[in-house]
Amino acid sequence: MDTLFSNVTAVTMDEAMHVYFGAFVGVTDGKISLVSKTPPKERPKQIINGEGMVLMPGLINCHTHLPMSLLRGYADGHDLQTWLNDYIFPREAKLDDRAVKAATLLSIAECLRFGTTSVSDMYDHCDAIAEAVAESGIKANLARGITLFSEDFDFETYPACRELVALRDRWDGYDNGRIRAEVSIHAEYTSNYRLWDALSEFAINEGLGMHIHLSETQKEHEDCKERYGLTPAQLLDCHRVFDARAQAAHCVWLEPEDMALLARHKVTAVHCPVSNLKLASGRADVISMIKAGMNVALGTDGASSNNNLDLFEEIKTASLLAKSLNADPNALPPQAALMMATVCGARAQGREAECGMIKPGLDADLILLDFTSPHLMPCHDVMSHLCYAARGSDVLMTMVRGKILYAAGKYETIDLDAVVRELAEHAMPTVFRDRDQ
Amino acid sequence: MDTLFSNVTAVTMDEAMHVYFGAFVGVTDGKISLVSKTPPKERPKQIINGEGMVLMPGLINCHTHLPMSLLRGYADGHDLQTWLNDYIFPREAKLDDRAVKAATLLSIAECLRFGTTSVSDMYDHCDAIAEAVAESGIKANLARGITLFSEDFDFETYPACRELVALRDRWDGYDNGRIRAEVSIHAEYTSNYRLWDALSEFAINEGLGMHIHLSETQKEHEDCKERYGLTPAQLLDCHRVFDARAQAAHCVWLEPEDMALLARHKVTAVHCPVSNLKLASGRADVISMIKAGMNVALGTDGASSNNNLDLFEEIKTASLLAKSLNADPNALPPQAALMMATVCGARAQGREAECGMIKPGLDADLILLDFTSPHLMPCHDVMSHLCYAARGSDVLMTMVRGKILYAAGKYETIDLDAVVRELAEHAMPTVFRDRDQ
Repeated sequence: MDTLFSNVTAVTMDEAMHVYFGAFVGVTDGKISLVSKTPPKERPKQIINGEGMVLMPGLINCHTHLPMSLLRGYADGHDLQTWLNDYIFPREAKLDDRAVKAATLLSIAECLRFGTTSVSDMYDHCDAIAEAVAESGIKANLARGITLFSEDFDFETYPACRELVALRDRWDGYDNGRIRAEVSIHAEYTSNYRLWDALSEFAINEGLGMHIHLSETQKEHEDCKERYGLTPAQLLDCHRVFDARAQAAHCVWLEPEDMALLARHKVTAVHCPVSNLKLASGRADVISMIKAGMNVALGTDGASSNNNLDLFEEIKTASLLAKSLNADPNALPPQAALMMATVCGARAQGREAECGMIKPGLDADLILLDFTSPHLMPCHDVMSHLCYAARGSDVLMTMVRGKILYAAGKYETIDLDAVVRELAEHAMPTVFRDRDQ
Repeated sequence: MDTLFSNVTAVTMDEAMHVYFGAFVGVTDGKISLVSKTPPKERPKQIINGEGMVLMPGLINCHTHLPMSLLRGYADGHDLQTWLNDYIFPREAKLDDRAVKAATLLSIAECLRFGTTSVSDMYDHCDAIAEAVAESGIKANLARGITLFSEDFDFETYPACRELVALRDRWDGYDNGRIRAEVSIHAEYTSNYRLWDALSEFAINEGLGMHIHLSETQKEHEDCKERYGLTPAQLLDCHRVFDARAQAAHCVWLEPEDMALLARHKVTAVHCPVSNLKLASGRADVISMIKAGMNVALGTDGASSNNNLDLFEEIKTASLLAKSLNADPNALPPQAALMMATVCGARAQGREAECGMIKPGLDADLILLDFTSPHLMPCHDVMSHLCYAARGSDVLMTMVRGKILYAAGKYETIDLDAVVRELAEHAMPTVFRDRDQ
């Protein structure tokens, strides 16, 4: 046994939602090898005293754009389309691989610090992102978000599709599946049927997941209905987009028929409540999606529409927002909100047999939280505290596959000082060279 | 000069919303004595290097029930009336002064740790609360929340009113005004006109502030209209409740006429967005209140309906909620949300000449935030970061009247270990003795 967490409160997130007090959780060869109320006879190489601490599965962030930390707090206060077209896209056009890698490492440091062990990312410059993920030790499903505004399209020669193929060739399955490549249609309103058909076929044939923005704003949803007589979900379904394992981000304006359709296809809705509120996109009806049988996971969206990557904040906001939307203080209770950030996230990523719970045989993707701070005392209910009172900054240690990547302010795989220097010396000048201020 | 913050980013919250980079802020005899872009000639007793840090006025929490940290996470998931009547009130009935003092100290530790320097509290056992406030060094406006369900009432003999008088006699003006006593009608639906008349008269005659729960739930608002033909604001106004400086907590169901009335009386609405969402009470229309001319401050409410006392979370939630309610991503921008937690809070407490800004002559109620963590880099916009990306755990130091009360994990005036022991040995057994689990 490599590591033993002793006398810890273990929130397993398993099927029975067991919470064990004074538990012993062992890690061997990167896997959870023991979950017990009594100490093992075997002598572990390392013991971590878990008194006053909570051990739970690492959180899974199913929709983000890691390099966008570079644009955090840049041009807040606009609606989604203005913000994207007038501010974000022009800056993103200046990005190069080096800037993307530095910004991605910064975001991964934040993810690890706040207890996230796996992310689903959609962006550009995927090779640079994959290099950062590979070095850092975090898990990631990586997608090249592809747009197509022309009628003229050939999968073989379209640059973004070539990048997708290169991403699949170079990175899919890297480090025994720590990185997975995914296919991404950026959104219905940023592409046309030629792309939908080609990418669906590629995803289905190659057995890759699909990642898409779906019905985020009322305008895009209504525009689609006006243009095609179908909702975005219905339209994309005609092009087999949901025949692959799919993560549909936002899903704010889904109609009941959409939910039934997406549930039938086992599509995951990735709820991003903070981003939806901040951009005034609307309030996704998570309770109806769950009732319709959909899997619902959580995402922070990019740092520039949030403006952090703390998934504990999404857990709380999701729970509060559901209560408000349904006028029901019991809607989306702590257990349900925590499931969205763990087991439902693992399912969304196609990693349900691999992580998302504390259970022998699964990867040791674990986080340890300090429960001795004033805001977590007394503790009548661990689940309630994790949902309503805790935040990412309570995370003391983040482990992926048995390897500690963050502990007590230190990053084991990321040289944060070097990242900060690289941001100051290369990334910021590259993207903001022309800025007057 | 006692303390000099050097090379710091100073977010003044003054009338012009100045933000100074590389600034020097001096503290002498508990007051801010210098705000400058150049270092002073005078040699200070202590220099705090503020590189990479942000200095701003301490936050002001205008509605809380400090001792309720004892019930944090106890019986979540009920609507306000069920939660109060079936769970909270029976437990509160078991409280004694010792338990209240310990729970209050725990909450003050949390407030200081998360950057709050002044609170408006409404509760019972006010003498114990005042002792904790006195020892800790935080500022507080303290009120005995008074209910009256009987027709039989005499101010002189009614126990809660005697406690109010004792609170005023013993604590009002303590430590040169660090503690202020206030009058509190708990709420319209928990009392009758006899109490309203008597307490209004007392507040007006004695020059004390008023603290009340107002139109928190739709039910209480509509019930009042049905009973009296008037909204709670209109009804209470007939009894001169708003002729004193008043803090009206929640204000979720105010009507346009209420807002005009309350603005005329310079009443502060204390917006508690997290509590309102969690209890599914509704969404307060802050933008309309501001447009009507009301002062709007922020409150966490008690820890058991939040479930923490981190005012940075209220700042972000208030800003997000306003955007969502108004379908406007520019609604309640960072500057406005931060004002609610500082200058508007000071005005609510009658402390506007004393704190809420960084300005020479005001009390040195200051907090220092670490801006070198991954989630606060890069920094395009300090105000945006304070509103959307930061949280209370980024606070490194909290100072009230020039005295450091919290810094880097240490409390100067609170023995947290002793508080935790007192909670375990006395408070919890006293309140939860009969609990089966």
